[in-house]
Amino acid sequence: MRTLLVIGIGTGNPEHMTIQAIRALNTADVVFALDKGRAKADLVDLRREICTRYLTEKPYRFVEAQDPERDRNPADYGATVEAWHAARAAVYEAMIARELDPEGCGAILVWGDPSLYDSTLRIVDRILARGTLDLAVRVIPGITSVQALAAGHRIPLNRIGGPITITTGRQIAGGLPEGADATVVMLDGRPRFDHLDPDLTIYWGAFLGTPDEILVSGRLGDVAAEIGDLREAARTRHGWIMDTYLLRPPEPT
Amino acid sequence: MRTLLVIGIGTGNPEHMTIQAIRALNTADVVFALDKGRAKADLVDLRREICTRYLTEKPYRFVEAQDPERDRNPADYGATVEAWHAARAAVYEAMIARELDPEGCGAILVWGDPSLYDSTLRIVDRILARGTLDLAVRVIPGITSVQALAAGHRIPLNRIGGPITITTGRQIAGGLPEGADATVVMLDGRPRFDHLDPDLTIYWGAFLGTPDEILVSGRLGDVAAEIGDLREAARTRHGWIMDTYLLRPPEPT
Repeated sequence: MRTLLVIGIGTGNPEHMTIQAIRALNTADVVFALDKGRAKADLVDLRREICTRYLTEKPYRFVEAQDPERDRNPADYGATVEAWHAARAAVYEAMIARELDPEGCGAILVWGDPSLYDSTLRIVDRILARGTLDLAVRVIPGITSVQALAAGHRIPLNRIGGPITITTGRQIAGGLPEGADATVVMLDGRPRFDHLDPDLTIYWGAFLGTPDEILVSGRLGDVAAEIGDLREAARTRHGWIMDTYLLRPPEPT
Repeated sequence: MRTLLVIGIGTGNPEHMTIQAIRALNTADVVFALDKGRAKADLVDLRREICTRYLTEKPYRFVEAQDPERDRNPADYGATVEAWHAARAAVYEAMIARELDPEGCGAILVWGDPSLYDSTLRIVDRILARGTLDLAVRVIPGITSVQALAAGHRIPLNRIGGPITITTGRQIAGGLPEGADATVVMLDGRPRFDHLDPDLTIYWGAFLGTPDEILVSGRLGDVAAEIGDLREAARTRHGWIMDTYLLRPPEPT
């Protein structure tokens, strides 16, 4: 049976790799890189660097996959994502069958952690459901941008005993839910802050954990414009941006 | 100025340590261990093992701190936690001043990640606010039980594009909020599932990432009793237990 390792690699700092991830990686015959879009080149470079630095115990091959295109502004979000996952499952199934010996071990390196807003495990489940490829799947956790954000700002995410919600820009397009406590927002391609309470405290970060890390915190009404400017400048400079932010209600006085 | 490293060490598997954490740890002159309660011996042992295994580049001292007692069933939760944090800040300030040279580097090893239901950073802020000790603080993120749970079950936490709430047993004592999507529950000393919808899917795990890891998943109504039995047996065997679970609403059919 083939083995497939789904390995969280952290948020762009190669030193986010855990010892567990490095040991797992060193059992791989083939490393698959599956990024796409504008960030692709940088992210594939990061994976190559991780392999060069840490995959030192055996020879391996590095395979860059062709990723099916995806409609970024679909009319029906759910159906479009479903169709895209189905297309990716077919592509990856063929790739694994072609590139990996029947007893071989492949590794997919996932930005952040495979559990958080990443489709790799859903696609692996689809491949397994298709039933033509036997795979033993193992998942290795990695540092997420949520933890990297908190570490950069040196803060706990939650208020004492309070909940944390991790959500997407899309989900808060209409504002935060009533009574929202600590809220971490990911995947916000076009952050707008003008529909949010200016008295919220924001902790914002981009390129978290890397030498390019940018951090801004403060009262939302005071720093929203600065974040917008920094974000645009960084996006122009890098050609892409990955940012995450925490919103917290004002502390009761 | 003294440096204080607050390092996330993961959930009990020494191989959850990141390269970043290992490099930071190797700059420490003193490692402080601050656990308490029934899990204390095992958790201090884990920290000793991490230091023995990874802190190899220089001599260091390992200091076990005296932790103030805490009322576990207080009448006023917020006020009791506040008083406890204040007491800890005084204890740790004295300990850092006593054990660390004026230019020395100390490390506090935090279970999981410092951002998630951990009071170390609040206590460090209190020490800084007292103004008698200058400290340069650096935070290194670590693997949390949330990621270890998802990795063990080989699942994404979120439904496609959906939010995730991380909360405590205390917060869901009255049930899940209306319309709750993926909900991760931590710090639930006495999990009760009988007040929750039996059609929820639960992914439960204890001693996550360690050789003692236990995983159960299924329809809550079908597996709640099994989880309760496994939990009690494991708690008796170890003398303590640390468990985490994800609840998700049934998928629409």
